[in-house]
Amino acid sequence: MQNTAQKLKSNSPLDEMSALLGDDMAQVNALIIENMQSDVKLIPKLAEYLISAGGKRIRPLLTLASTAVFDGPMDRAYHLAAAVEFIHTATLLHDDVVDLSEERRGKKAANLVFGNQASVLVGDFLFSKAFQMMVNAQSLDVLEILSNASAVIAQGEVLQLMTTNDINTDLPAYIEVIESKTAALFAASCEVGAVLSDQPQEKVHAMRTYGIALGNAFQIIDDALDYSADQKTLGKEIGDDFKEGKMTAPVIFALQDADADEMAFWQRTLARKDQSDKDFETALGYINAHNGLEKSITLARDYAKKAKDALNVLPDSDLKRLMRETVDFTISRNF
Amino acid sequence: MQNTAQKLKSNSPLDEMSALLGDDMAQVNALIIENMQSDVKLIPKLAEYLISAGGKRIRPLLTLASTAVFDGPMDRAYHLAAAVEFIHTATLLHDDVVDLSEERRGKKAANLVFGNQASVLVGDFLFSKAFQMMVNAQSLDVLEILSNASAVIAQGEVLQLMTTNDINTDLPAYIEVIESKTAALFAASCEVGAVLSDQPQEKVHAMRTYGIALGNAFQIIDDALDYSADQKTLGKEIGDDFKEGKMTAPVIFALQDADADEMAFWQRTLARKDQSDKDFETALGYINAHNGLEKSITLARDYAKKAKDALNVLPDSDLKRLMRETVDFTISRNF
Repeated sequence: MQNTAQKLKSNSPLDEMSALLGDDMAQVNALIIENMQSDVKLIPKLAEYLISAGGKRIRPLLTLASTAVFDGPMDRAYHLAAAVEFIHTATLLHDDVVDLSEERRGKKAANLVFGNQASVLVGDFLFSKAFQMMVNAQSLDVLEILSNASAVIAQGEVLQLMTTNDINTDLPAYIEVIESKTAALFAASCEVGAVLSDQPQEKVHAMRTYGIALGNAFQIIDDALDYSADQKTLGKEIGDDFKEGKMTAPVIFALQDADADEMAFWQRTLARKDQSDKDFETALGYINAHNGLEKSITLARDYAKKAKDALNVLPDSDLKRLMRETVDFTISRNF
Repeated sequence: MQNTAQKLKSNSPLDEMSALLGDDMAQVNALIIENMQSDVKLIPKLAEYLISAGGKRIRPLLTLASTAVFDGPMDRAYHLAAAVEFIHTATLLHDDVVDLSEERRGKKAANLVFGNQASVLVGDFLFSKAFQMMVNAQSLDVLEILSNASAVIAQGEVLQLMTTNDINTDLPAYIEVIESKTAALFAASCEVGAVLSDQPQEKVHAMRTYGIALGNAFQIIDDALDYSADQKTLGKEIGDDFKEGKMTAPVIFALQDADADEMAFWQRTLARKDQSDKDFETALGYINAHNGLEKSITLARDYAKKAKDALNVLPDSDLKRLMRETVDFTISRNF
């Protein structure tokens, strides 16, 4: 058996948070398992494939932390923590169908194993179950926050679809996409904890700001990693966004300073989707020449600072410290 | 200007109901238009394409009727009526992607005009907006009913996917599919009216029973029409279910009495999806020989009777009469 001191010695702040909230996470995991059951066997089979694939469970952890940091009602937070993980999982399933993905979390993407049809419908199932669980938290305020977030996520996904292959997409448009498709759920995950805990508007707002800024930083780094040669050295697949023509930070920064030749290159590869084997190499070169990765990381750091500043209104505690450290951890992933 | 007497002389009970609840439906339609707006222009464009394609708005009408019949709070019912139409529309969008549909309500299916990706994501958007509107009705009881219904619908869709091309699908399995994918939303549409109106359990249960039975009757007739030669004479496309290998009532009845040759035919065409031009003709012949359509219609009539009986606990009123007549109208569509 691990004692608390040992638990706290874990590697990352997320591991530490998981350990500190271990009993609570166990309840959340039980709810997750319980709610993915169905007599229709394909549903638990597909849900398990995705959910057992792991992932960091960062959103439910944030919901638990944002409730515990205010000494809020943990039993009600469990339902919400499980619900945000289900919303996230449903989004992943639909994303993979939309992106025609081949891999997710190091495994063959669910749509390739079970088919697009099952991915769409099981996504709908998980999304519906998320709302059932939210109702169990018995708070209309929280339901409003999470249903708003869901609508914003879907809107962000559509916006991403529309900006894909559009090389006129600028930084504000990119930020709108990531703030909708990624940060909105981080924000809701954190905000509901404060709301459940009956915190004043100032604290609710702080948690929301923390979530948005953390979510943006997280997504910008994710997008930068897809152009990181070091990732490739680590054996990770990179270049998916380039292949799909997604307009993310590294490319947008490279485009800002592109000369005529480079412009023609981006025009051909991203807008006209006419790519050959060597093009990704060339893209990396152009991004490098214009410091596309460095600028992306700087942008992520700006959001990271905003996230950490938002926590200042909270009284000091282990959880507050871990929420701060989670921000730094998020942007310090390997390049 | 039409006066009420003129309004009531309209053709079908649904038209009459629309006229009787005209002011209320206008409010619901306004909410529908308002909630499909978005700065992301593709969203209103696609939503409008589907929603302006019409459809009978039978589900929102049922929600309004089920509230008005108990003198319930109409202003709160508006949100729910718009929400059930959004859930229905989202389901249609995802269905068309899953079925690879080519037509919907006499127009080219949205997935063919806007792409599968947009259909999946705009479906998610409409689904999220449905929950936003439900929250506006400010009742956790109602939210529970509708989130349960959504989960059941998704489950029914997955079950349908799994029974497709499986000629061992029997009548109970078929009824489970339609009761989940179709009747659950009819039931919820009716039940929420009674719940919003603070009716006793007996009335709530009656409205739920009415909705399930009406939904089942409606879907069985829909499925029978896809094998109706008279429909073809009317210029309607038939045979889609056969092409996809969907296991619906007419085929299941024909399979119950199939001889060895017929069994081999269904095995080849439905299970192995090996079909040629003349096969649909042959299928119609086999269904005819075993009274597959008549048996389907009888089954629909049984549910219709159940639906009408459920209304007996209601005090007499114009709306009660129209709800009864809606049942008969639903099963009297042209064969």
